Amino acid sequence: MNTASPALSPDNVGLVKPRKIAIDQPLSLDCGRLLQRSELMVETYGELNNARDNAILICHALSGNHHAAGYYALSDRKPGWWDRYIGPGKPIDTNCFHVVCLNNLGGCHGSTGPNAINPETGVPWGPDFPMVTVRDWVRSQALLADVLNIECWAAVIGGSLGGMQAMQWAIDLPQRVRHAIVIAAAPRLTAQNIAFNEIARQAILSDPDYHGGRYYAYNVNPERGLKLARMLGHITYLSDEAMRARFGRLLRNTSEGRFAFNYNVEFEVERYLRHQGQSFVNRFDANTYLLMTKALDYFDPARDYHDNLSSAFEKTRCAFLVISFTSDWRFPSERSREIVDALVKARRNVSYVEVNSTLGHDDFLMPIPDYQHCLANYLRRIASERKP
Amino acid sequence: MNTASPALSPDNVGLVKPRKIAIDQPLSLDCGRLLQRSELMVETYGELNNARDNAILICHALSGNHHAAGYYALSDRKPGWWDRYIGPGKPIDTNCFHVVCLNNLGGCHGSTGPNAINPETGVPWGPDFPMVTVRDWVRSQALLADVLNIECWAAVIGGSLGGMQAMQWAIDLPQRVRHAIVIAAAPRLTAQNIAFNEIARQAILSDPDYHGGRYYAYNVNPERGLKLARMLGHITYLSDEAMRARFGRLLRNTSEGRFAFNYNVEFEVERYLRHQGQSFVNRFDANTYLLMTKALDYFDPARDYHDNLSSAFEKTRCAFLVISFTSDWRFPSERSREIVDALVKARRNVSYVEVNSTLGHDDFLMPIPDYQHCLANYLRRIASERKP
Repeated sequence: MNTASPALSPDNVGLVKPRKIAIDQPLSLDCGRLLQRSELMVETYGELNNARDNAILICHALSGNHHAAGYYALSDRKPGWWDRYIGPGKPIDTNCFHVVCLNNLGGCHGSTGPNAINPETGVPWGPDFPMVTVRDWVRSQALLADVLNIECWAAVIGGSLGGMQAMQWAIDLPQRVRHAIVIAAAPRLTAQNIAFNEIARQAILSDPDYHGGRYYAYNVNPERGLKLARMLGHITYLSDEAMRARFGRLLRNTSEGRFAFNYNVEFEVERYLRHQGQSFVNRFDANTYLLMTKALDYFDPARDYHDNLSSAFEKTRCAFLVISFTSDWRFPSERSREIVDALVKARRNVSYVEVNSTLGHDDFLMPIPDYQHCLANYLRRIASERKP
Repeated sequence: MNTASPALSPDNVGLVKPRKIAIDQPLSLDCGRLLQRSELMVETYGELNNARDNAILICHALSGNHHAAGYYALSDRKPGWWDRYIGPGKPIDTNCFHVVCLNNLGGCHGSTGPNAINPETGVPWGPDFPMVTVRDWVRSQALLADVLNIECWAAVIGGSLGGMQAMQWAIDLPQRVRHAIVIAAAPRLTAQNIAFNEIARQAILSDPDYHGGRYYAYNVNPERGLKLARMLGHITYLSDEAMRARFGRLLRNTSEGRFAFNYNVEFEVERYLRHQGQSFVNRFDANTYLLMTKALDYFDPARDYHDNLSSAFEKTRCAFLVISFTSDWRFPSERSREIVDALVKARRNVSYVEVNSTLGHDDFLMPIPDYQHCLANYLRRIASERKP
């Protein structure tokens, strides 16, 4: 019996180790506050070449972090969140590229954020941590690039909120990115998107265990609220069709085949949601969740350009690949087309692919052959265009 | 200046008074329990004719009640919830019909339900109130019809969960209903529908003020949970487009025109949702909300017929009018078409109208001319076909 860890597979980046990188440059934030110094948890895969021009920045989405590929230990049950796409011979090929992924500022997996110690007080920042925006993240990622001595990214890539960062990079630091790959994203949230976020926030903020964000001091977690927020998120990550196919109206105890008439888990979909909610509270910080949803709400690059997205794109210099999924109802293809239309209007170099899919928003993480080929081909092109 | 109350308008049913009707027949419920007696809050509009064949039953949806039309006082700010459709000369014309609307069993507006006193204990039923299903409601409404000496309804009409009751009437008591008008409904919930309900329930059940459903004794209300549940409901009642048109990304304080970077209301849609949530907790009972969502989840008339909806419809004898709305994403037109297809397959008399609309699920309450005409025409036909 083959018990080898998948970490040892030749197309896996293998065992990886995150490192904490200190950013000693002060960071001026959109909210008006200044962060004197910060730390970012970072993972890298693949070698940086001598020209230092093969670096790819991976930006994570709402609940992601720096652990995008590989394993921390041979016994790990799961690899990094985008392991299907990053590795030797995979679409984001670590034989060609030096891949950098960080936990964003405000995150809860080691980077400076609400659950980190505020050096001025000696206790966790909690609600005193400043609100961060996608623009702030780009600034902070640029400071990281400075530390890493990466002048220009071969590509900035992200799905969902990560795709928004890729767009913002292209707009704010046009000379530092050659390709922006924007997957399952939107140029800004709709009222309905904001409404979902607001309910998630209210669930957390109204949890008595939230304690105004200072729950660390009480040794509790606003678990109820964070759990609800995550359950709600999951509805928007999965298509109606996928939920039908996966759960339908299946009862939890099919053997009994009849209703229990109580509030315990009755339908399979209830079990799934509760499980997703519960497992999330064990690995995520509620204050970070709040921050991330606000960053989503605030994202609106057109806002700085008289609400004209195409004006916002006019100063970009990179090429764009925009990818959407037919079954995504959180950020449907129409939203990607808004991005594409604005890029076309701004006469930018843009490729757009709409991938046939069934699962929903989460498809950007899934192994869909069309999507894999499209990403792989585009990245091969990037690899080949590098100066020798 | 004309300050006359709209209650005095000639097309309004005017001042109305609910009455509590005792049902002394024991009621056997789907959950296996027996309710020895019950009380139902009822309103009626228009006269019952001598033949007693012009009675229409209006079934309410999740958060509705018996107050469907008219005003309780000239000073009332708002009329009953379906006042646009019920009144002299309105689509459900009280010049022709005797309209009956009740607060369903398990409701919180005067009918026997969780917030009513359990005669066996002298305190509110709370979580001891049995779970009720759409079938139970039909049974209970039939007992009410007995008390009112109405042998056969000219029509049973309802939107959303109300439409499900109309369907169930047609199936369970075919000889007692001549027309079933099923508006913005579905033959059963999808996994996604159930998922939304489950999150609403978890919000309530996990609220520390819920006290296992015995919050009445603590003089509190699980306000946080019920508020979240209602906010979530509202997202599903409005179309994405309607939310965009109504709120877009408008900021609450447009005068300032910049973000506040805190968790107060920032976008208009947040203000709207919080307001909807807050006003709801002042008029609705959390235990009833839980019951109603479970009744929705359980509704599945095909289940008793080997999951064959058309078999379920085979024993119906009434004519059907099915209405759906193009912008409804809670129960989209496809779901109504499932009903229509099953009726056609069962060779029933069915008319189907898909109304062009923009608002979403809530459109069944709105004054949309096409919808008004369609209902008015159909009901005129019903009125004219009555034996003289």
